[in-house]
Amino acid sequence: MNACRQFEHDRRFGTVKERRIGYEALRSKLMSAQDAARLIAPGTTVGMSGFTGSGYPKAVPLALAERIEAEHAAGNPFSLRVWTGASTGPELDGALAKADGIEFRLPYNSDPIARDKINRGEMEYFDMHLSQVAPMAWQGFLGPLDTALVEISGIRPDGSLIPSSSVGNNKTWLDRASQVILEVNSWQNPALEGMHDIYYGTALPPHRVPIPLVRPDDRIGETGFRCDPAKIIAIVETDAPDRNLPFKAPDEDALTIAGHLLDFFRHEVAQGRLPASLLPIQSGVGNIANAVLTGLVDSPFEDMTAYTEVIQDGMLDLLAAGKLRMASATAFSLSPEAAAGLNADMERFRGKMVLRPQEISNHPELIRRLGCIAMNGLIEADIYGNVNSTHVMGSRIQNGIGGSGDFARNAYVSIFMTPSLAKGGAISAIVPQVSHVDHINQDVQILVTEQGLADLRGLSPKQRARLIIEKCAHPRYKPALSDYFERALRSSYGKHSPSLLAEALSWHQRFVETGTMMA
Amino acid sequence: MNACRQFEHDRRFGTVKERRIGYEALRSKLMSAQDAARLIAPGTTVGMSGFTGSGYPKAVPLALAERIEAEHAAGNPFSLRVWTGASTGPELDGALAKADGIEFRLPYNSDPIARDKINRGEMEYFDMHLSQVAPMAWQGFLGPLDTALVEISGIRPDGSLIPSSSVGNNKTWLDRASQVILEVNSWQNPALEGMHDIYYGTALPPHRVPIPLVRPDDRIGETGFRCDPAKIIAIVETDAPDRNLPFKAPDEDALTIAGHLLDFFRHEVAQGRLPASLLPIQSGVGNIANAVLTGLVDSPFEDMTAYTEVIQDGMLDLLAAGKLRMASATAFSLSPEAAAGLNADMERFRGKMVLRPQEISNHPELIRRLGCIAMNGLIEADIYGNVNSTHVMGSRIQNGIGGSGDFARNAYVSIFMTPSLAKGGAISAIVPQVSHVDHINQDVQILVTEQGLADLRGLSPKQRARLIIEKCAHPRYKPALSDYFERALRSSYGKHSPSLLAEALSWHQRFVETGTMMA
Repeated sequence: MNACRQFEHDRRFGTVKERRIGYEALRSKLMSAQDAARLIAPGTTVGMSGFTGSGYPKAVPLALAERIEAEHAAGNPFSLRVWTGASTGPELDGALAKADGIEFRLPYNSDPIARDKINRGEMEYFDMHLSQVAPMAWQGFLGPLDTALVEISGIRPDGSLIPSSSVGNNKTWLDRASQVILEVNSWQNPALEGMHDIYYGTALPPHRVPIPLVRPDDRIGETGFRCDPAKIIAIVETDAPDRNLPFKAPDEDALTIAGHLLDFFRHEVAQGRLPASLLPIQSGVGNIANAVLTGLVDSPFEDMTAYTEVIQDGMLDLLAAGKLRMASATAFSLSPEAAAGLNADMERFRGKMVLRPQEISNHPELIRRLGCIAMNGLIEADIYGNVNSTHVMGSRIQNGIGGSGDFARNAYVSIFMTPSLAKGGAISAIVPQVSHVDHINQDVQILVTEQGLADLRGLSPKQRARLIIEKCAHPRYKPALSDYFERALRSSYGKHSPSLLAEALSWHQRFVETGTMMA
Repeated sequence: MNACRQFEHDRRFGTVKERRIGYEALRSKLMSAQDAARLIAPGTTVGMSGFTGSGYPKAVPLALAERIEAEHAAGNPFSLRVWTGASTGPELDGALAKADGIEFRLPYNSDPIARDKINRGEMEYFDMHLSQVAPMAWQGFLGPLDTALVEISGIRPDGSLIPSSSVGNNKTWLDRASQVILEVNSWQNPALEGMHDIYYGTALPPHRVPIPLVRPDDRIGETGFRCDPAKIIAIVETDAPDRNLPFKAPDEDALTIAGHLLDFFRHEVAQGRLPASLLPIQSGVGNIANAVLTGLVDSPFEDMTAYTEVIQDGMLDLLAAGKLRMASATAFSLSPEAAAGLNADMERFRGKMVLRPQEISNHPELIRRLGCIAMNGLIEADIYGNVNSTHVMGSRIQNGIGGSGDFARNAYVSIFMTPSLAKGGAISAIVPQVSHVDHINQDVQILVTEQGLADLRGLSPKQRARLIIEKCAHPRYKPALSDYFERALRSSYGKHSPSLLAEALSWHQRFVETGTMMA
């Protein structure tokens, strides 16, 4: 907005300060990001907002990174323990990692600079089930939380905070932290107000009670965060967009995978094993997930719901098409076009979306009760259906387990999907034995590649192996997988889940040594 | 009971038939086990009672095995799909496996004859999370259930069935099966009546609601099973004991492990991270578990509760000592002495025990809400804290995952315990990489061996590795583990969870080839 338009806008609606900070007494806490960053001491723990690149603080972490670099240049050690909701943006994880400012990170990271530090062994990282972050922070063994650094979209006259484009663990950070720094981001649409559902009924055992949510639509909490104003030591005004990655149109493989899945859903409805409106959908982030969601636009299923972590482009399409009745999540993860579309049309969408704390969006109790259809990606699966979602070649972490474990174990149907090849065919997504396990075979019911869909429900290990090789493996690797399995059937130590110990990880070793899994 | 005493007993209390089968119309269904076995057709699915060797049918499976052997001798194929609660006894799994009568088995087995068939590749076996058996049977993909074959301790005048010494999946078998065969076992103490809590509020989504249990003591159901009398095609009278394995006094290792755990509990209470009465205890079965329970008798903790699968000897000791207020489980698993003691003193104990369906005893919603302290055994753990509970050398199944996944992922504190050595030192329970994964490192918080206790909560993979090697590994294997880890730190593909792919499973390979993991 140029200066003239800004003046006119302020004359009509009040200044940013007046509109966004309704609790007047707090306006005295307004300061620059640099001043706020000085309130964070070295060696302390900071709980930051942010989930899949939305709603993370955008100014103070950058100022912190500058300060850390200056301290390092002066020969002073300075690093932090950083907790978030999930992934953030380059202004947070990227900048702090580049400054060597993070000594310990949880629960999820997808920033390339931070990832590189982690995989060089220069940053300690604990990737966690996303449902467990808040309860474990309350349990206390993670240590004290010194500072909450949270982006919000405004402060109401009563002092309650209007959440931003993600909720994540913000409620817990605000409750647990000794001091609070807020970033009030006027880029966030004011129409976000009222879209959130912040549940204040969690507790530590033995004081836990049933969470009273029985449909994805249910509202069980408040529209804002409670926060003791006395804890708020700084407020920083920002006007900066979320990290919105451009949306890649789905490729041939993604469309084929989506087709297999839609066939499966139709079959399950025909068998009476799924209602005609399906069951609440959980969808991981990414192109394949988006292709599945887009495919549902032209499907026969009506009145669908989503109970998931993230509202991405495909979900908006489904809402716009009237196929999806509503979506419950903890964050947005939109392309710039979709974000612009949502911001322009927020009034139309906001009644159909609820953003909740991630301890609720990912709660095992609720996922099991609702009977979610979980759809997640993977790095590799083995012939028995064990899934590796995190570690490339068993040791190099990609992102983290995120919420996939919360959903896969508790879903009504747990689906994992991937193209059968990676790196131009140098990697087979189906291997004799996964090099790292995130999801045990019991939690992997449907495995889909562009080659086909394997329904593994109720099968023994050897039955699963035959089906996965037949339906999911790429023809290029199928003979080698069959050969491995047949030889294992003959000479394995035990023949319940036959394996050849000396060969089980040889495909990965070959890739590391030669750049391809092909023998 | 000899004939004369039996006569006198019957004169005073009524015949077995009169006392145990109160619903008169059903007495016409009484028949021999052989006649009942003839009502089960080849190729069908039978849902049997039984959980950890208690409450399983003891006569009809033996008669079935005889019939199957006769059919096989005559050249006729005859095999069944067998579902149970968990492990049963030699009269069921042993006899049917010996007769080659089981073509598919779920969800758990500990019978040595069946185990041998499975590991020779002659029987298909699907080991499942015990909480998921009933809901998955309702989902339908496991196929229809033809016959329920259930041991009970009696039939009330109103036709409801008095459960036996385990509940398991009996409610679901009785509801789902086309036909029902009952074994009424007069060995079971009549005082069992009233001890059960059969919850009838489960449903398929989208009709699931919160399960209204907030304390281990709560009763949320009925004391008996509902069963349509028209479905009952046979009743067989038995008077046979449960499989009660003799109790082995805890050895030195078990006592040391128990000591480490009690120290940990005291420490957590002192830190304010556990209440002084702890939280509901879940305990796996076995000597180490029993040693821990016995250790709690002399601990400072009072007014404890248990929310677990099985009530074993140590639990009775805790109840008798007044340290445990009550125990909730789905089955008994007692030594002959403890079973005799319980039977003789049932009136004293029965108000302090509740037996529930395993879908409730193991329900993720309830385990998470109650905040259980989960204690389970393992076969091996790796330096990152991944646990293998099921597959010896990665391919030979021991028993099954059972309820360990239900508890480990949802517990307030998830503990795994094992002696650091097995097979006289030829096997290290701590290995570079587990050969099979049942519990991912995120679900393994405390690892205990007789060497020490590693508190892995909130640690990164490399921090975990150093602690596990230091605290848990046996000195005999510690240098080799440290050497592996240090070399992996230098030359691993990624350095988040460093591994040497060509060596990761070499300890297992060496054991298979040479009989020891020692190089």
